[in-house]
Amino acid sequence: MSIRIEKDTMGPVEVPADKYWGAQTQRSINNFKIGGEKNRMPIEIIRAFAILKKAAAQTNAELGVLSQEKADIISTVCDEILEGKHDDQFPLVVWQTGSGTQSNMNSNEVIAYRAHVLMGGTLEDEKKKIHPNDDVNKSQSSNDTYPTAMHVAAYKMVVETTIPGIQKLRDTLDAKAKSFKDVVKIGRTHFMDATPLTLGQEFSGYVAQLDHGLRAIKNTLSHLSELALGGTAVGTGLNTPKGYSELVAKKIAEFSGQPFVTAPNKFEALAAHDGMVEAHGALKQVAVSLMKIANDIRMLSSGPRSGIGEILIPENEPGSSIMPGKVNPTQVEAITMVAAQVMGNDVAISIGGSNGHFELNVFKPLIAANFLQSARLIGDACVSFNDNCAIGIEPNTPMIQRHLENSLMLVTALNTHIGYENAAAIAKKAHKEGTSLREAAIGLGLLTSEQFDEWVKPEDMIGSLK
Amino acid sequence: MSIRIEKDTMGPVEVPADKYWGAQTQRSINNFKIGGEKNRMPIEIIRAFAILKKAAAQTNAELGVLSQEKADIISTVCDEILEGKHDDQFPLVVWQTGSGTQSNMNSNEVIAYRAHVLMGGTLEDEKKKIHPNDDVNKSQSSNDTYPTAMHVAAYKMVVETTIPGIQKLRDTLDAKAKSFKDVVKIGRTHFMDATPLTLGQEFSGYVAQLDHGLRAIKNTLSHLSELALGGTAVGTGLNTPKGYSELVAKKIAEFSGQPFVTAPNKFEALAAHDGMVEAHGALKQVAVSLMKIANDIRMLSSGPRSGIGEILIPENEPGSSIMPGKVNPTQVEAITMVAAQVMGNDVAISIGGSNGHFELNVFKPLIAANFLQSARLIGDACVSFNDNCAIGIEPNTPMIQRHLENSLMLVTALNTHIGYENAAAIAKKAHKEGTSLREAAIGLGLLTSEQFDEWVKPEDMIGSLK
Amino acid sequence: MSIRIEKDTMGPVEVPADKYWGAQTQRSINNFKIGGEKNRMPIEIIRAFAILKKAAAQTNAELGVLSQEKADIISTVCDEILEGKHDDQFPLVVWQTGSGTQSNMNSNEVIAYRAHVLMGGTLEDEKKKIHPNDDVNKSQSSNDTYPTAMHVAAYKMVVETTIPGIQKLRDTLDAKAKSFKDVVKIGRTHFMDATPLTLGQEFSGYVAQLDHGLRAIKNTLSHLSELALGGTAVGTGLNTPKGYSELVAKKIAEFSGQPFVTAPNKFEALAAHDGMVEAHGALKQVAVSLMKIANDIRMLSSGPRSGIGEILIPENEPGSSIMPGKVNPTQVEAITMVAAQVMGNDVAISIGGSNGHFELNVFKPLIAANFLQSARLIGDACVSFNDNCAIGIEPNTPMIQRHLENSLMLVTALNTHIGYENAAAIAKKAHKEGTSLREAAIGLGLLTSEQFDEWVKPEDMIGSLK
Amino acid sequence: MSIRIEKDTMGPVEVPADKYWGAQTQRSINNFKIGGEKNRMPIEIIRAFAILKKAAAQTNAELGVLSQEKADIISTVCDEILEGKHDDQFPLVVWQTGSGTQSNMNSNEVIAYRAHVLMGGTLEDEKKKIHPNDDVNKSQSSNDTYPTAMHVAAYKMVVETTIPGIQKLRDTLDAKAKSFKDVVKIGRTHFMDATPLTLGQEFSGYVAQLDHGLRAIKNTLSHLSELALGGTAVGTGLNTPKGYSELVAKKIAEFSGQPFVTAPNKFEALAAHDGMVEAHGALKQVAVSLMKIANDIRMLSSGPRSGIGEILIPENEPGSSIMPGKVNPTQVEAITMVAAQVMGNDVAISIGGSNGHFELNVFKPLIAANFLQSARLIGDACVSFNDNCAIGIEPNTPMIQRHLENSLMLVTALNTHIGYENAAAIAKKAHKEGTSLREAAIGLGLLTSEQFDEWVKPEDMIGSLK
Repeated sequence: MSIRIEKDTMGPVEVPADKYWGAQTQRSINNFKIGGEKNRMPIEIIRAFAILKKAAAQTNAELGVLSQEKADIISTVCDEILEGKHDDQFPLVVWQTGSGTQSNMNSNEVIAYRAHVLMGGTLEDEKKKIHPNDDVNKSQSSNDTYPTAMHVAAYKMVVETTIPGIQKLRDTLDAKAKSFKDVVKIGRTHFMDATPLTLGQEFSGYVAQLDHGLRAIKNTLSHLSELALGGTAVGTGLNTPKGYSELVAKKIAEFSGQPFVTAPNKFEALAAHDGMVEAHGALKQVAVSLMKIANDIRMLSSGPRSGIGEILIPENEPGSSIMPGKVNPTQVEAITMVAAQVMGNDVAISIGGSNGHFELNVFKPLIAANFLQSARLIGDACVSFNDNCAIGIEPNTPMIQRHLENSLMLVTALNTHIGYENAAAIAKKAHKEGTSLREAAIGLGLLTSEQFDEWVKPEDMIGSLK
Repeated sequence: MSIRIEKDTMGPVEVPADKYWGAQTQRSINNFKIGGEKNRMPIEIIRAFAILKKAAAQTNAELGVLSQEKADIISTVCDEILEGKHDDQFPLVVWQTGSGTQSNMNSNEVIAYRAHVLMGGTLEDEKKKIHPNDDVNKSQSSNDTYPTAMHVAAYKMVVETTIPGIQKLRDTLDAKAKSFKDVVKIGRTHFMDATPLTLGQEFSGYVAQLDHGLRAIKNTLSHLSELALGGTAVGTGLNTPKGYSELVAKKIAEFSGQPFVTAPNKFEALAAHDGMVEAHGALKQVAVSLMKIANDIRMLSSGPRSGIGEILIPENEPGSSIMPGKVNPTQVEAITMVAAQVMGNDVAISIGGSNGHFELNVFKPLIAANFLQSARLIGDACVSFNDNCAIGIEPNTPMIQRHLENSLMLVTALNTHIGYENAAAIAKKAHKEGTSLREAAIGLGLLTSEQFDEWVKPEDMIGSLK
Repeated sequence: MSIRIEKDTMGPVEVPADKYWGAQTQRSINNFKIGGEKNRMPIEIIRAFAILKKAAAQTNAELGVLSQEKADIISTVCDEILEGKHDDQFPLVVWQTGSGTQSNMNSNEVIAYRAHVLMGGTLEDEKKKIHPNDDVNKSQSSNDTYPTAMHVAAYKMVVETTIPGIQKLRDTLDAKAKSFKDVVKIGRTHFMDATPLTLGQEFSGYVAQLDHGLRAIKNTLSHLSELALGGTAVGTGLNTPKGYSELVAKKIAEFSGQPFVTAPNKFEALAAHDGMVEAHGALKQVAVSLMKIANDIRMLSSGPRSGIGEILIPENEPGSSIMPGKVNPTQVEAITMVAAQVMGNDVAISIGGSNGHFELNVFKPLIAANFLQSARLIGDACVSFNDNCAIGIEPNTPMIQRHLENSLMLVTALNTHIGYENAAAIAKKAHKEGTSLREAAIGLGLLTSEQFDEWVKPEDMIGSLK
Repeated sequence: MSIRIEKDTMGPVEVPADKYWGAQTQRSINNFKIGGEKNRMPIEIIRAFAILKKAAAQTNAELGVLSQEKADIISTVCDEILEGKHDDQFPLVVWQTGSGTQSNMNSNEVIAYRAHVLMGGTLEDEKKKIHPNDDVNKSQSSNDTYPTAMHVAAYKMVVETTIPGIQKLRDTLDAKAKSFKDVVKIGRTHFMDATPLTLGQEFSGYVAQLDHGLRAIKNTLSHLSELALGGTAVGTGLNTPKGYSELVAKKIAEFSGQPFVTAPNKFEALAAHDGMVEAHGALKQVAVSLMKIANDIRMLSSGPRSGIGEILIPENEPGSSIMPGKVNPTQVEAITMVAAQVMGNDVAISIGGSNGHFELNVFKPLIAANFLQSARLIGDACVSFNDNCAIGIEPNTPMIQRHLENSLMLVTALNTHIGYENAAAIAKKAHKEGTSLREAAIGLGLLTSEQFDEWVKPEDMIGSLK
């Protein structure tokens, strides 16, 4: 591999000749061989850096601390990064300095050196026309850029992927709930037979869960929309021109299309990441909901012959490499694994979030990586589950009917007529003798056949809540 | 121990003669010897049951399905329970049936049998004037009462203990932030010396964290205010009179003084406890914040001679059984242990919340117990930390001054004058040679003594954000 | 309340006149009003302190730094504490100083002052004959006594409650596995019908899980048997006589009946609690196993008419306050809640364990309290589950038979005769047409009726592993 | 993209013409668009599949159920996979069917079709010479191959990467401990000044932590060495020849060079992954240890002028993009982020592990992916931390000396001479008046200057444990 020499304040470093990055990026490559490629800094963070570097450059120009020419060439490179042209220029892993300094410098170096090349220079020039620190990083610090990139990337992922994915699944389940509103079926509590409800009611509970989850996520967006940029090294805004924080946030909002604002308190924004903890808490809530919903669907569709089998789900692939003809709830399995992952990520993020010291939290890349994984996985998994499973769910009417007719818990309707204890006696007798409730009721002389028919009607037991 | 015989649908059981409870409570005592006294169902749940049983009785009377006389005697007993007169009548542990059925029946039995006694009966009477199921539990099921009690108890704990505790600490920290607004001190990032800020700014970050936390908690209250009552066995409201759900929620709101409403979807309210998961997520966020804040105070007060020592905290007790004269940040230790507990409880609650099946989640007592512990611990610990630590925090001016004067990071102010690389050279020289920045700067010939004095002023480095 | 005045190095404090404790205990009561009675320091820790204080006193006497008279009177009080005579003398909560100093001092004070009274003094005497620090705490520090008490209490709980509880359940399940060895039933993978196995094989998996869990717990006992005592303040053993560490550990072993040894490295023993983290990790593993086992039993016993219903579990109590005759798997619910709690506690303990600083970890009471809760809950819950559920499990033969006969997955036996793809065609046809495998197989002309009978025998499909 | 048509039991699918995979792999690509490239099935699992497929083929041949020719061509392809020649043939993500069926089929298809090509066929041939199910998957099921691959990959990662990484760091810390054995320094408890110890003693605690961690990991290897292979669909070993389980395990041991054995109970091996839970529990314990160790090093090296600053760590890169000359403990930050990740992963794995149902756990890929990430991250991070930080740690003697001389806690040495209370009075006086202990001691008339010199010697306070 052909190399060139780059320098930073610590001295010279060998860098691949054809890469735009410089000494500090290379030091990180050399010093942090942890986890390999899969552990690269999320590309969403790189893109968010491009947005904020462009915003900072333009703000600096507008406030008179950077030439417009420099701002424009920096912006041009940022646009290239946003178009995905330089994805291979960001080789660093998550497990680096906890402030993300090295990824900030990776951005600074790539932008500066690419700009230098665009301005006619070559990578071998010792002196570049654009300086990574003095120009690209102007009015910035890793300590305020990285958390800004975190919030930008996280916010965008949540509103562009997570929420639409959940919403899509929610809408499908809602349509199913409406479509199944007349399908009376047995209820189950404690995994045991209980009084009836409709399949539509059962699904409406899932919809209510996701509605609450969507509301909870949206409640966290305002905190997530607060940007640290302008705080620089410790939150005081040292080395920023007057008016910088507000203007740079405005430009980020403009370039990203999302309503970002400058954080009212920059000390919190650098030293704590409660905004990420808060938003991920809502993602975790949705994970908890999805685990319940998917488990229900797994169990409702179990069988085909020896399970509960009250719904049918689409058959998407052969289920077994050894058992011919087997069909499995694979989408359920993917989404419940995602739920478990998000619940684990929540712990990692909480631990990271709780470990800030003084003016800086140095678990930033950990927090960002886990958050972005969770937000994407939930969004993607909801769409996958929706498209390949939820949308095709149908009631298995014969099984529903058989279960309903057999149920001993229809006896509950008799409580208000003959009292809990008499009703219990009927159910116990029927259970013990393997007979129907009607037979047991009449056998005990507690009511007539006519009364039984009048009082025990599953379709009357599903309530005004139907 | 003197005993009497009580019966339920499963047959007779021996019960202590002087206790109000009946057969089902006793079966639970016999069958669930798990964890001992410390694991008793939280008293807040018992009290919340008293509120809802009273509300249900009055609603039943108003809707014509229970005599007013019965409703009134039930209410009388509920009031006695709320006054703490029967705390020893609720011996069951958390680790029972996951629907809390046995605690619901414990309430039903104690209320019915105490009412029977108040009406002139004796506990030995085989037939009681009030029936635990048919009267006290009328229009109810464990499946909707227990989650209602959970929400009532949780909501009350949050608004009566948690929020006021956090608010108290927040207000003290805010007063400190204002009081310390002119105390310029060194900043620290990566636990290493950084550019200066004021002690007031440092504390303002803590205030911002708690403000965000309070907002996050309040965002969750609407979900928590939704009551399951009226859903009965599976969410359909079987065996409830028309209008019951809304009226009983109104009465609970009235009796508790909190804005409870009936849950729009009862299926979600029985089968999932996302409302608890959501609210505890916010508690966990505050735990994360408290860990950061308390850790900072621990470290800022470290010493007295060989630590950071920039603040002084109250001396409340001898710190060591072996080291005479030692004073330790014990309140910090208590609150950080609380934070760790809440982070653990969050996992328990999430696992419990994710494991509902079909129409019922049967991890209810686990969720309730962990939630109530977290909510109380945060509230109590904030007050304890506030009263015994935060309120007495004072700056240790000589130490602050010494650290500030020594700091090499004041060099950052030179970036905009001589560039990052020259500034770095000064800092490195001073560090290496153990000299002051001024000496190093002049030694390198990069600026004059006058320029140094003009450009490097800590009090000018704390920004417009001051 | 009558009071007296006690003093410590910080000055006088008002103490209830009739209590043995002194100034430092009282300061803790006053300063740490967090969580109330349920959050008291576990009694097992108090008892462990009694063991170690006695051991320290006798060791001190034997090594000539304490009079035998003092050692004996201290030992007498310790024996009283071990007999439970002074349980009301230990009012402090978990949420105190993180070293447990205040509980160490509570022990020191109660022992000293009770000894003083036994020696003829009165609590009002300003000068006590036995000094809490100079006598009772001799050759000790909170920093080595508390972790010693943690290990003693934890070890005893594990070997006296946890392991026997698990072992009992394991033995019952093993007996069931053997008893069910000829009950051929359908298998289920992905919650879907699969090839057959015996009910005994299914249960043998549970036994294997618990065997592995027991082995894992036992693997952690050697770390847990290491005692910090002798390290005193920072691990160096300052102020201890020569030979103290080894001798005091020997005496603790003798007094407790467990094989405790002195920790080879006292710095680790004070500053880290990896021994607790390690042992709790094994408890958490068992919790994971119990969740699986209990869930299976919950689902296998579901019904009675519309579930899987392949086993019958004991009916211990009425299952529902509204649904007469309902029986629920309540023991399953208790033990799965316990499992969730232990999984949450594991996070609390890990966070606490990771947060030691320099020579001391100050999350000790948190770690102790969570550990002891988990260890006891697992032990108790296993016994409760065993006695009230596992022991009464019986196969529901008619249901098992029906499911087995219906299974389409018996087709797997044909793979080796006609290939996976042909076998799949048979299963699919039978599923689609609702017929038996035999009909489908013959319908497709892939084999004769005789071949079907010869090749598809559930009892031949359960392997040499039977 | 050029395509070809492949078929499985569900019908035809379009597959990229140049890829070896078939219909089932393609269905998974189409149906599970979750998480993107970073979420691909770990390559270690793919390689482990290659080992086990080769072992199964050779075993099948040896036991007479597969021709030697087929076994050999299958083995050839497996060797190619192990050499990394087909890494691009395994595009599936973790978030697929929870049994890993699709990755098993991906292996089966690639091996079969590549073998077909090696045997002279072309990918367009409808009938391949080697069948994915009937040949490559012979005597196997996803249900036993995937958990086998999990254990093989996990075991190898642990013994090849994790343990050597920890050992390397442990050895360096041990060398430091020995090298620093005479550096007497102040101790710190509660983050406050305490009695002295040597820097070597402080480091010996870290070594003890890692020694315990290594032992804990090794304790889990026996469970991890148990292989599910031979259990096939539900654990009974259906469709395997006699002697298969033992022989195939022997071959895997041979091909992998690790001591794998067949699991004594195949039902546990398919339905539970307690072996993974157990081993990851030990990894989590090490994460907890690393968090403590790295935090200490972070804090001990803090400064350079306003921190604790008792050790010097290597300067590896410029620490700040804005603060010139700043050096940060970046390796500490990387490894503590890793620790947080592992603690989060532990929760994900525990949740996954607890959610098996009946004969199968379907959270397998989640468990595998989290385990492998943790095991690699710990190994890599230990090496990185070792090479770039630990190895270069040196004491900062002047700072150590200054702290030691100032310490008030040297007063502890006086306890045994003048009693705890008198000693406390000295410390308090010195603290209050800002004087030395000697001055305060003499000022109080409690001892002479000569006595002070004789009794208070830091070098005598570090114990026989030195």
